[in-house]
Amino acid sequence: MFVEIVTTGSELLLGEIINDNSRFLSEELNKLGYFVIYHTTVGDNPQRMEEVLQTAISRADIIITTGGLGPTQGDMTKEIAAKVLHLPMEYHPELEEQIRRWFCHRHRSMSPNNERQAMAAKGAYIFTNEAGTAPGMAIHQNGKLIVHLPGPPREMRWMYEHRLKLYLLENFGSQGCIKSLILKVYDMGESDMEQAVMDLVKGQSNPTLALYAKPGYVELRITARAATEEAAAALLRPMEYQLQQRLHRSVIAYNKETMAEVLGRTLLSARRTVSCAESCTGGLLGSYITDVPGSSAYFLGSAVTYCDTVKHHILGVSTDTLEQFSAVSEQTAGEMARGSRSLYHADIAISTTGIAGPEGGTEEKPVGLVYTGIDGPWGMKVYKDIYVGDRPEVKRRAAIRAMYYAVVYLLENKE
Amino acid sequence: MFVEIVTTGSELLLGEIINDNSRFLSEELNKLGYFVIYHTTVGDNPQRMEEVLQTAISRADIIITTGGLGPTQGDMTKEIAAKVLHLPMEYHPELEEQIRRWFCHRHRSMSPNNERQAMAAKGAYIFTNEAGTAPGMAIHQNGKLIVHLPGPPREMRWMYEHRLKLYLLENFGSQGCIKSLILKVYDMGESDMEQAVMDLVKGQSNPTLALYAKPGYVELRITARAATEEAAAALLRPMEYQLQQRLHRSVIAYNKETMAEVLGRTLLSARRTVSCAESCTGGLLGSYITDVPGSSAYFLGSAVTYCDTVKHHILGVSTDTLEQFSAVSEQTAGEMARGSRSLYHADIAISTTGIAGPEGGTEEKPVGLVYTGIDGPWGMKVYKDIYVGDRPEVKRRAAIRAMYYAVVYLLENKE
Repeated sequence: MFVEIVTTGSELLLGEIINDNSRFLSEELNKLGYFVIYHTTVGDNPQRMEEVLQTAISRADIIITTGGLGPTQGDMTKEIAAKVLHLPMEYHPELEEQIRRWFCHRHRSMSPNNERQAMAAKGAYIFTNEAGTAPGMAIHQNGKLIVHLPGPPREMRWMYEHRLKLYLLENFGSQGCIKSLILKVYDMGESDMEQAVMDLVKGQSNPTLALYAKPGYVELRITARAATEEAAAALLRPMEYQLQQRLHRSVIAYNKETMAEVLGRTLLSARRTVSCAESCTGGLLGSYITDVPGSSAYFLGSAVTYCDTVKHHILGVSTDTLEQFSAVSEQTAGEMARGSRSLYHADIAISTTGIAGPEGGTEEKPVGLVYTGIDGPWGMKVYKDIYVGDRPEVKRRAAIRAMYYAVVYLLENKE
Repeated sequence: MFVEIVTTGSELLLGEIINDNSRFLSEELNKLGYFVIYHTTVGDNPQRMEEVLQTAISRADIIITTGGLGPTQGDMTKEIAAKVLHLPMEYHPELEEQIRRWFCHRHRSMSPNNERQAMAAKGAYIFTNEAGTAPGMAIHQNGKLIVHLPGPPREMRWMYEHRLKLYLLENFGSQGCIKSLILKVYDMGESDMEQAVMDLVKGQSNPTLALYAKPGYVELRITARAATEEAAAALLRPMEYQLQQRLHRSVIAYNKETMAEVLGRTLLSARRTVSCAESCTGGLLGSYITDVPGSSAYFLGSAVTYCDTVKHHILGVSTDTLEQFSAVSEQTAGEMARGSRSLYHADIAISTTGIAGPEGGTEEKPVGLVYTGIDGPWGMKVYKDIYVGDRPEVKRRAAIRAMYYAVVYLLENKE
């Protein structure tokens, strides 16, 4: 099954937004063994869109469009596809009813424009949208399948997962399976990692092994192709075993698992609670931890203290420490962690204090310098790191690293 | 000048990496007034790549390819382009010399494969590469320009900025200037906005007006094309004036300005400090506020309180309130804001409490329900919203909306 993904929207051609819809759909369709052979992006221009759809229909079996299903004049994808397929547009009262309910449920009134969203090409199979107002649709013609999905990534993903994926499997079945396993390593650089596994990278065809340097960690991706998911999984196992042998303690996270999820499962299995005290991360650490559903089971809170007086009043960091060593110091990081731990009555506390930049750096305390404190039943640890990147990047790296240190603290004291 | 950007590489079609090369080149070329009309991605497949290049040459004036210039067998872009253009490949000894020096400089030895990188189509203008080994090139034929750039984003960007940009300006000059102005509206839905400005959207060709629905706000983009930046700016002004007249108080942010930046400048001009009390946003509100350089001038901190006892102990939310109305209630939001304001001695305090999901929703308190409290010298306000989206999305929308409410609170009490 050859697939072409057609993304529409002038903002893509202006370079204002990055095209993640094509990436997401490609990743998902490859999992089903479908071959994505082209990505095409075209603007909100009727003639060019028509030509693009004609070309796509001539060279692919399945054409998936995203975008242009909204209520505005710029939204024209389904109308132009209907023209290319010589199909009339039909009004679907049940769709208008759904859209009306969607607005009603949100105590908002539906504008006349939204009625355009209740139109669909004659004979189209409708994908109702529970994540937004724009319905999707699928049209079969001369052995080709044309699919329209909404453009907003959240709605597009929802409709793929809850509608299109099942529809494709029902109509064409799985075309074999591509299965990947990702191992994430946080305490080795890219080149050391290359040294450690290069022979495996070079030696393999199925499964393949690839290395990717990510912010704060290195990703090892094993990918296997087989007729069934079981067969693909069986191909992955021996390679994973070899890698675990070589890297044992270094592999901390798997697949799409985030460091916040790793911290979450580590805390749950250790039956421990955690709190934070944040300066340079400004709340990002607590936000990462609470991105995990159910984190209220182990996360008590975070005291974001952005000035010295507050560090002293709320966390009890001594004025001597602040005067003698300053807020960005090993001593302050330690006292912040201890203060948070007692303020929240937490088992483990994590603190961050540093210079996120772009201003405030000095010779001996440069931008990117961050102290991370961990306080818990097995004593206190403070780490010093210097991160590169702009202000948000330094915050991200510091917050992810802080969770990593907490995980190591828990794992080391487990055995 | 119509441009098509052709990105090559199977990893793009597998969804393993996101395509930022197309976005970057589009953004840069639009700055020069060149029209990017298509993005096409094709894999390392000779026949498909040949067809894609033929199509591109037939519909664009300038075709820019990225990727496929490396030393491996999968790298075939320039060979296939030469075939399409009926040009022989020629060996360039000076290129091999440069590549050899590049390796030598890095104390690495050049593999025989790299010699392939010294080949170029007859008559091609060579772009030497100081950021990597793959040279780029430009070929003129029948009034069309075909450009090959390397695939690794760092090398591609370097070659655009140091080679291609100047080459384009020398050969075609600037095609005039495209200038955009973005107005962000937070208190109107996409359809209502459409109603309010549809006549302007329809009536305009230069400047054009476009609407984009973004998480939590609607973006109005005015884009003008002119010979000079001043002329483009002059075209923008009357349209902006008309929009301000129609939407006056609704336009809160401009261009790339984030709500955190708007809150920052509003607080600075009002000479006020702010603190937060966060439950469902988990620290994201504080993190957004501290993404702004210099936010320490007005941001004191945030008390992230993720359980009732902590809400009571740290913020002084009364146990009666928590028992009678629960943590997700107008009353709790209000007491959290008041508690944060006195804890941090802040002028204004912002609180969030809600149900981020996916669990924890009920009939009368569904997932996505968030109460936002604002406490300050002009009294207390509490807002109730229901946000759609997954857990991180609800957090994002709630945090952005909370900053918006604080901005409105400050602006309303300014006059």
